[in-house]
Amino acid sequence: MTSLKDIRLAIFGPGLLGGSLLHDARALGAAELRVWARRGESLAAVGDAGLADFSSTDPAAVAEGADILVLCVPVGGMKVLAEQLAASHPAAGAVFTDVGSVKGLVMREVAPALTGAGFTFIGAHPMAGSEKGGFAAARPGLYQDRACLLTPLPETPPAPLARLEAFWQAFGCRTFRMDAAVHDAVVARISHLPHVAAVLTVLASLQSDPDNAGFAAGGLRDTTRVASGIPDMWSGILLANRDALLPALRDFQDQCAGVIRMLEQGDSAPLTLLLEQAKLLRDNAAPFLPADRTAESE
Amino acid sequence: MTSLKDIRLAIFGPGLLGGSLLHDARALGAAELRVWARRGESLAAVGDAGLADFSSTDPAAVAEGADILVLCVPVGGMKVLAEQLAASHPAAGAVFTDVGSVKGLVMREVAPALTGAGFTFIGAHPMAGSEKGGFAAARPGLYQDRACLLTPLPETPPAPLARLEAFWQAFGCRTFRMDAAVHDAVVARISHLPHVAAVLTVLASLQSDPDNAGFAAGGLRDTTRVASGIPDMWSGILLANRDALLPALRDFQDQCAGVIRMLEQGDSAPLTLLLEQAKLLRDNAAPFLPADRTAESE
Repeated sequence: MTSLKDIRLAIFGPGLLGGSLLHDARALGAAELRVWARRGESLAAVGDAGLADFSSTDPAAVAEGADILVLCVPVGGMKVLAEQLAASHPAAGAVFTDVGSVKGLVMREVAPALTGAGFTFIGAHPMAGSEKGGFAAARPGLYQDRACLLTPLPETPPAPLARLEAFWQAFGCRTFRMDAAVHDAVVARISHLPHVAAVLTVLASLQSDPDNAGFAAGGLRDTTRVASGIPDMWSGILLANRDALLPALRDFQDQCAGVIRMLEQGDSAPLTLLLEQAKLLRDNAAPFLPADRTAESE
Repeated sequence: MTSLKDIRLAIFGPGLLGGSLLHDARALGAAELRVWARRGESLAAVGDAGLADFSSTDPAAVAEGADILVLCVPVGGMKVLAEQLAASHPAAGAVFTDVGSVKGLVMREVAPALTGAGFTFIGAHPMAGSEKGGFAAARPGLYQDRACLLTPLPETPPAPLARLEAFWQAFGCRTFRMDAAVHDAVVARISHLPHVAAVLTVLASLQSDPDNAGFAAGGLRDTTRVASGIPDMWSGILLANRDALLPALRDFQDQCAGVIRMLEQGDSAPLTLLLEQAKLLRDNAAPFLPADRTAESE
């Protein structure tokens, strides 16, 4: 494990993702943990956990002297925060990054506020999380063995990019570089679409009679787990990525219509073939999916 | 745990469900384990595991003298097996049952072959399983804390029904009695629809680029797990229950169209409301869903 002993880390928004970074950064020997939250009581919880060397509700005060600054607020609130940080004084060579689930919007609307001020901003999306949100759900090891997708700009210098890759790798991430638009198309399919599918499954399964949950097995449990995610955060993600999500959802809808037709026609051959295609894809994917099955999601 | 020491148990089809019954029945001290399989090599594996006191590829030979006889073959093959068993000689007061995921078809097409021969048949559906099939995946404790839905006929006498309830309870099941049509409507929503949703999610997520699985987090993993189920078995289940499944799938399709409209219109209020409804349903359901997260499904 790479040490973080030369890194003064600033976390903006100590929720599940930011808080989990703090847990690991402490264990990795970070030189200093600096924490911003909108509300003082959020900072008190972080302080009680011994995970803040300096904390404040003033973003610029938290940025002061920091080497790596991670925006961990919902994508909808990131631009305002970035604008507040444009006049801050982090360390020379500091790198700003984020953990947002959508990168086109972040690179278009958030990055300019910081790059315009002469700072380096490189978008990041660690594929880790949980249906449970907030600092109370933060835990060590959340990022272990997860993909972390970085979206540098063409003009991003190699040194801060390499520094940020080493940073995420210290938490156990496998890092990948990709264009923000490619990122958004990929996560629309592997993260945002499954989230919508889980929500639709809950509604169609339980809305007519919630008590039927008492008869359910593991299939309903797992297929719907992420539907417990934070509604306004997910609403923001899905809308921010709607251009990439809509084509994926229309594919999903077409496939659903196809299954309905097969059932109406009562023909088992095409239905079995479809189930075989899905099984093959899922079986081949299995070795690449996270192994840990305990309360987590992107 | 209730003992099974007075029960000579006959299992027809020692796959995941039948094999798991054999594991637990041995531990519960069943008087005798009798096993039928279509192929001799399947019986050899059961014998090697020490879970067959008598085994044969002749159904009537396995039924001889048995007290509880459980049909554990796919629903499509159950009628032929039942017809072969109509001329068998189980013990006086014997109870035939099954583990099929669809009950209307079983009560209409399978039960008469046995009740017509003077036997008692009571349909059963233990809500346990795994995306992995076959005797190799069978294990002790599969049924612990699971619902088992029994579908007696109006004319089913109370004594064998009580006996069958005690039988399933010995394996750790919570038993419920319901009409076969009610059963089929319930499981269409809480089991068969989630299965279709998982299949659709795999296809829409990974078909365009299977390598994207390497970037995925726990959401895709859990939402799609059951799509690895046995294709022809699931094709048979979905088609056998299509009358109940189609209305559920049309609800699902309508909700999907609704989400697409909300995204197209870019309006966050109705989308957030929908996600809140789903979260509330899922959070309220959570205490009633199976707690164990290791490789299982219906």
